[in-house]
Amino acid sequence: MDLPLNLAEYEELARQTMPRTHFDYFGGAAADGITARENRRAFEDLALRYRVFADVGDRDLSITLFGRKLDWPVAIAPMAFQQLAHPQAEIATVKAAGRTGTLFVASTMATTSLEDIAAAATGPCWFQLYVYRDRSFTKALVERAEAVGYEALMVTADTPVLGRREQDMRNRFHIPPGVRIKNLEGTPFASFGLDDGGEYTGARYMLASLDPSLTWKDLEWLCSITRLPVIVKGVVRGDDAEQAMKCGAGGIAVSNHGGRQLDSAIATLRALPDVVQGVAGRGEVLVDGGVRRGTDIVKALALGAKAVLLGRPVIWGLATGGEDGVARLLGLLREEFDTALALCGCKSVDRVTRDLIA
Amino acid sequence: MDLPLNLAEYEELARQTMPRTHFDYFGGAAADGITARENRRAFEDLALRYRVFADVGDRDLSITLFGRKLDWPVAIAPMAFQQLAHPQAEIATVKAAGRTGTLFVASTMATTSLEDIAAAATGPCWFQLYVYRDRSFTKALVERAEAVGYEALMVTADTPVLGRREQDMRNRFHIPPGVRIKNLEGTPFASFGLDDGGEYTGARYMLASLDPSLTWKDLEWLCSITRLPVIVKGVVRGDDAEQAMKCGAGGIAVSNHGGRQLDSAIATLRALPDVVQGVAGRGEVLVDGGVRRGTDIVKALALGAKAVLLGRPVIWGLATGGEDGVARLLGLLREEFDTALALCGCKSVDRVTRDLIA
Amino acid sequence: MDLPLNLAEYEELARQTMPRTHFDYFGGAAADGITARENRRAFEDLALRYRVFADVGDRDLSITLFGRKLDWPVAIAPMAFQQLAHPQAEIATVKAAGRTGTLFVASTMATTSLEDIAAAATGPCWFQLYVYRDRSFTKALVERAEAVGYEALMVTADTPVLGRREQDMRNRFHIPPGVRIKNLEGTPFASFGLDDGGEYTGARYMLASLDPSLTWKDLEWLCSITRLPVIVKGVVRGDDAEQAMKCGAGGIAVSNHGGRQLDSAIATLRALPDVVQGVAGRGEVLVDGGVRRGTDIVKALALGAKAVLLGRPVIWGLATGGEDGVARLLGLLREEFDTALALCGCKSVDRVTRDLIA
Amino acid sequence: MDLPLNLAEYEELARQTMPRTHFDYFGGAAADGITARENRRAFEDLALRYRVFADVGDRDLSITLFGRKLDWPVAIAPMAFQQLAHPQAEIATVKAAGRTGTLFVASTMATTSLEDIAAAATGPCWFQLYVYRDRSFTKALVERAEAVGYEALMVTADTPVLGRREQDMRNRFHIPPGVRIKNLEGTPFASFGLDDGGEYTGARYMLASLDPSLTWKDLEWLCSITRLPVIVKGVVRGDDAEQAMKCGAGGIAVSNHGGRQLDSAIATLRALPDVVQGVAGRGEVLVDGGVRRGTDIVKALALGAKAVLLGRPVIWGLATGGEDGVARLLGLLREEFDTALALCGCKSVDRVTRDLIA
Repeated sequence: MDLPLNLAEYEELARQTMPRTHFDYFGGAAADGITARENRRAFEDLALRYRVFADVGDRDLSITLFGRKLDWPVAIAPMAFQQLAHPQAEIATVKAAGRTGTLFVASTMATTSLEDIAAAATGPCWFQLYVYRDRSFTKALVERAEAVGYEALMVTADTPVLGRREQDMRNRFHIPPGVRIKNLEGTPFASFGLDDGGEYTGARYMLASLDPSLTWKDLEWLCSITRLPVIVKGVVRGDDAEQAMKCGAGGIAVSNHGGRQLDSAIATLRALPDVVQGVAGRGEVLVDGGVRRGTDIVKALALGAKAVLLGRPVIWGLATGGEDGVARLLGLLREEFDTALALCGCKSVDRVTRDLIA
Repeated sequence: MDLPLNLAEYEELARQTMPRTHFDYFGGAAADGITARENRRAFEDLALRYRVFADVGDRDLSITLFGRKLDWPVAIAPMAFQQLAHPQAEIATVKAAGRTGTLFVASTMATTSLEDIAAAATGPCWFQLYVYRDRSFTKALVERAEAVGYEALMVTADTPVLGRREQDMRNRFHIPPGVRIKNLEGTPFASFGLDDGGEYTGARYMLASLDPSLTWKDLEWLCSITRLPVIVKGVVRGDDAEQAMKCGAGGIAVSNHGGRQLDSAIATLRALPDVVQGVAGRGEVLVDGGVRRGTDIVKALALGAKAVLLGRPVIWGLATGGEDGVARLLGLLREEFDTALALCGCKSVDRVTRDLIA
Repeated sequence: MDLPLNLAEYEELARQTMPRTHFDYFGGAAADGITARENRRAFEDLALRYRVFADVGDRDLSITLFGRKLDWPVAIAPMAFQQLAHPQAEIATVKAAGRTGTLFVASTMATTSLEDIAAAATGPCWFQLYVYRDRSFTKALVERAEAVGYEALMVTADTPVLGRREQDMRNRFHIPPGVRIKNLEGTPFASFGLDDGGEYTGARYMLASLDPSLTWKDLEWLCSITRLPVIVKGVVRGDDAEQAMKCGAGGIAVSNHGGRQLDSAIATLRALPDVVQGVAGRGEVLVDGGVRRGTDIVKALALGAKAVLLGRPVIWGLATGGEDGVARLLGLLREEFDTALALCGCKSVDRVTRDLIA
Repeated sequence: MDLPLNLAEYEELARQTMPRTHFDYFGGAAADGITARENRRAFEDLALRYRVFADVGDRDLSITLFGRKLDWPVAIAPMAFQQLAHPQAEIATVKAAGRTGTLFVASTMATTSLEDIAAAATGPCWFQLYVYRDRSFTKALVERAEAVGYEALMVTADTPVLGRREQDMRNRFHIPPGVRIKNLEGTPFASFGLDDGGEYTGARYMLASLDPSLTWKDLEWLCSITRLPVIVKGVVRGDDAEQAMKCGAGGIAVSNHGGRQLDSAIATLRALPDVVQGVAGRGEVLVDGGVRRGTDIVKALALGAKAVLLGRPVIWGLATGGEDGVARLLGLLREEFDTALALCGCKSVDRVTRDLIA
C-alpha cells in the first residue's frame, strides 16, 4: 500500500495494524460517541472566506506561547499508554515532535517516566497531570516535572470520575503486566489491569486515585506550588474559564477529552468562542478534539485559539511507523496547514482573523 | 452473549428474545413513527455545557416529589400487559423498582390487579387511569387505588381515541385468552382480543370504554373525588398545562404516549419548556419519551422537569431477565445518571440548571 | 398480501401492479425530483402541538366551499389519462369520490369526456382546464362544463411550457392508440403519442396546444366568461395570489404540479402561508403536493388552507382496485384525518388553528 | 445506451469512457471534497418562488457583457489539458461553444495554443491567465491574447499555491509526453510530468511558475498593461471584490476553483451576494461551481450574477462526444435554462430578480 496521504488514511492503516482492543482504546469514546462525532462535525460545518492577492510568499507558521517561540501552532495532546501503540512509546513520539517543531505534552499516565521523556526530548515539553487524592504525591509530580525542564503544566479538569467507555468495558481493556505507568511506580496505580473476575476496572482505578471533590481552591493550590504556567484542560464554558484565570491559571485547553468523558458534551470548536471571551486575553487558549486537516487549525485560530492539540492521529502515526510515522504524519499536517494559510491569504498566523469564518 | 452495557443493547436482546408481535406492541408507534424518532432526536440534539472543579465528591441523586423523597428522579411509566413480556409481569417490575429506588406507576391496563401490585411493592407507587365512560367505575378505581396506598394518580389525557398503530393492525395484536386485564375484571373490557373476522380491535376497544368527550370539567371532577395529587399525562402545551393546574391537578407529565398516539406530535423534550412555563411552579412537571441515557435525565432536568418516566426500556429488562433484568437495567441507568451528574459538575440534582444546555 | 394499511403501502402495491412506464408517468417528477421530495418533507418537518380535554366526542369533518357543504376537506386532484391506471378510468374515480364524500376535479386531459364523468358523478365535481391557444375552444370547454353541472373551474397556471420529465423521455411515454383524450376529440390534441422517430413528444404537445403568453388579462377573460368560481392552480406566491383575486378568481390552489413542472420550486406547504396572506380572505385557498397522512390535512388547514387536493395516491387506489380501491384508500385517509382531528383536540375543522403547529 | 438526458448522466457516461486518472483529474477536488459538494448543495438548497401569468411566450435568453451581446448567460470555464479528454481538445470545445452561442474562456494551460483556439473560434472568447513569476512572459501572454481577438482576460486569484489534490497524488497524475501546454512552449513549464521518483509534481510545478507573493499592486499592473477588461476569478469576499474594482478590474468570477484549491472554502453561491454587494455595480459578476441544471443558472442570476461559468460538465461532453458532445450538452443545458425561465415566469433574463428565491 502507498503511504497515507492524510490523517484519515493513517487511521485506516492503524485500524489494520493495531490489535482491536488497543485501537478501540485510543479511538473510542464514551457512550454513543455523539460528542466525538460532533467535535469533528463542528470543524466540517465551518466554511472559510479566504482572501486573495494577499502576498503569501514567505509564510511564517510560528507562534509564541508563554514567551516560547513554537514552529507551528500544534501540540501533541497528552495521551496515556503509548507503549500499546509502539514499543518505543513516548520516546518515539517526543523525538518526532522535536523533529517537526511540535510541542509535546507528556501524560502522567505515560508508559515512560517523565524524566526519560525529558531526556529524549529535543523540543519544548509540557506535563499533564491530575490532582490526585494524595496531594503530596501530586506536588511531587509537579516538582519532578519542573526539575527536568517541562515548561508548563496541564491539569485535566474534566475527569472527576471516568466516562462510560463501553468499548473498553466490552473489550475488557487493560495494559499487559509488562507495561507500567512509570510515573506512578511506587503507588498502587502503576498498572491498569482487570479485576479478579476478569472485568474492566477503569472507573474504579480513577475513583481510587483521583479526587472528585476538587474545587477552584484546588486549582489555586496547584498554581501556587509551581512557577510554571498552568493550563486547565477540559473547560467548555466561559464562566469556568474566567474562574480559572482568577485562580492563577495561565491558559485553557478547550477540550471534552475527545468525547471520552461526558457524551453529548458540547463540541469543542463550538465552545471555543465562549471560552475565549471568558479568558479575555488574560491567558492562552488552546483547543483539541477532531483536528484532522490543516484547515481545521486555521478555523481554530480564527475563532481565537492560539494553538491546537492533536491526539488520536499521533497514535495512528506511532502505531504504523514509530517515530518516523509520527514525524511523517505531523509533516503532512504541517504541509496542509501551510497550504491552508497560503490559500486563505494569510502570510502568518496573526493574519488569521475571525472574518475568515463564513 | 455478554450482559448488555446500556439500554440500547437491552433493546437488541429483547428483540431477539420476545415474540415479534409482542416486541412490536411495546416498541411500536403510530403511523410513520416520526414522533417516536423525534422524541429521541430531541435528546441527542442537545449539547451539554458541563462545569469543572465543582466538587462532585458525594453526590446526592434524590429528589422530593409531592413531599415524598425519591432516591433518584426516575419513575417507571405506566405500561399495559406486562405479562406479555414476562410471566411475573408487574410484580417483577414493581419489585425491581423497589430494589432500585425507582417510583412505579401502575397501569389500569395491567395484567396484575392494582391491589396485588401494591402488596408486592417495596417503594412508592402511583396509579395510572383513564376517565372511563362509566364514571362510577372510574371512581371505584380511584377508591381502590387510594385504599391500598398509591400515592398519586396519573390520568392519561392524550387518548380520546386510539392512535393508528399499524404494526398492531398488521400483526393482529391481541392478548392470549389466559391473560386478563385484572383491574377490569367484571367489565366487558378485561380482555383485548381479535374480532370474529380475526382482525385487530384496539381502536374499537378504546372507543367502547373511553369517553372522547372529556373536557376540563372532567379533570376537575377527577381531582375533586380524590385526596391524591393528580398528574395529567399527555400534555404538550403550556396553555393546556396552565388549564390543568386551574382544574386542581398536581402536576403534568409531558408525554405524547411514546409516539403511539398522534404521529408527528411535537417531541416531548421540545415541548417541555413551554409546559414548565405554563405550570409556573404550581405543580410538578415530569417528562417521558426517548430517555435512554443518564445524560438524557440531566437534560430533562435542566429544562425544568422534576423527574422522567421510563417506558419501553423497562419492558426490555423485564422480557430478558424478569425482576433481575429490570433491576439491572435500572441500575445501569442510575449509574449513568450518577456519572453524568458528576461530569456535569453537579453534586446534586438542584445544581442541574438551564445553563447546562448549549 | 394483506390490504394496504396506509397510502404508502398502496404506492408499493401499485408499483408492483402497474407497467413501469405508467407508474413512472403518474409518480414521476421533473428533473431531479427535488420539489417532489420537499413537498413531502415540508409536511414531515412540522410538529403538532395537540390539545387535550377538548371534547372531541362527536366530530364534524365537513367544510363549506363556495357555499357547498363537503363531507371532509379533501378533493381529488385533476389528473390526466386515468385509463392507464384502470379500464374504468375516471368513471371509477368519480364514483369512489361520491361514495366517500370527496370532491372530484376532472381533468381536461381525462380519458373520459367531462359529460360522461358528470353523468356518473354522485357528488360535487369541478373541472380543470388550461387556457388553450384556441380561445374559442377554451370557451367551449367552459360552456360544456357549466352545462353538465360542474360547480367550479380550476385553471392550471404553472404550465406555460411542460416541465422536464426525464423519466417520461427515457420511457418514451405515450398513451396507446385506443386511449383518447375525450374532451379534445375533434382537435389535433386527442392523442398523446410518439413522434415518427419514436421519441417522447410531451413538450411539443403542450407547446402546440397551450399558450405560454398568458397574462393576468387572460385570467380576467376566463373569469368573465363563466358564472362559476375560478380557482387558479399552481400559485406559490402571495403577490400572484393577490393579483389573481383582483382578476376575479374565486380561490387559489397552492401547487407546484406535484413537482412535475419546475424542479426546485418551493414546497407547497412552505408557500401556503404567503399565499393565504395574499388572498387575505377574499377567496378560498387549497393546497396539494405530498399529502399522505391524515395529519397532513390537519397541518394544511392549520396553515390556512380550506382543503387539500390528493393526487398520486388516488391513482394507486385506482390501479390496484378500481373504484373500490379508490374508495377504500379515501376511506383510510378519512379515518386517519378523523383520528388526527380527535387527537389534536379538534371537534371540528374550524378548531384547527395556527397554534397547533410548533 | 440512450443519449444522456441531463448533465449528471453525461458524468456517468464520462466515468465509463475516460481513463480513471483523467476522469479523476477533471472531476477531483482538494482534500475531502467538502467544498465541491457544498458548491452543489448550495444550489439544491435554494427554492424558487416562480411567477404565473407572466407572458413567457417569446423568451429572450441573451445578456450583454462588457458591451458584447451573448446568446445566453453561460461561459465555458477555463480548463487545462483538454486533450486528455479528446484528441481535438480545445478546438472541439471552442467550436461547440460557437455553435451554441456560449462564451469560451481559454486556459493558459490549454493543450492548444491561444492562437489556434482563436482561429477556430466562431464566437466570443476570453483568455484566462495566471500572473507568472516571469512578468514579461505574463505580459507577452496578454499581448498574444489581445492580438488574436480575445475580448477579456480572466486572472485566476485563488492559486498562490496548489491545493491538495490527493486523487492526483495517488494517481500520479501527469500528462503524456506527446501532450504539450502549447502556450508555454519555450518555457520550462510546457509539460506536466512525474519527477524522477515517479511522483506527482503538481504543487512543485505551480510553485516554480507562479508567484505566491502577489498583491493588489500586481492586479493593478495587469489591468494597466491591457485595454481588455480583467475579470478576477477566485474571489469569495465582498471586501476583496471591492478592492479588485479599485485596482481597475472589470469584473469578478466568484469561484473556489470548483473545490480544487482550499477545501472547506465557502460555496460560491453562498458567497455570491456578498461579492455582488462589494462590486456594487462597478463591474460584472460571474459565478461558477456546481452548475448542473437550468434552474441553477436562474438561481445564480437571481442572486446577482450576470452569467455562470460551466466547467467539468463540458469535459464530460467533450470526452464522450467531442465537439458534438459538448454542443449537445450545452444544448441540453440551454433548453433546461429556457424551460426554467418560462416556468419561473421570466420572459427575459432581466426579469430574474431576487424575490424568486424563497
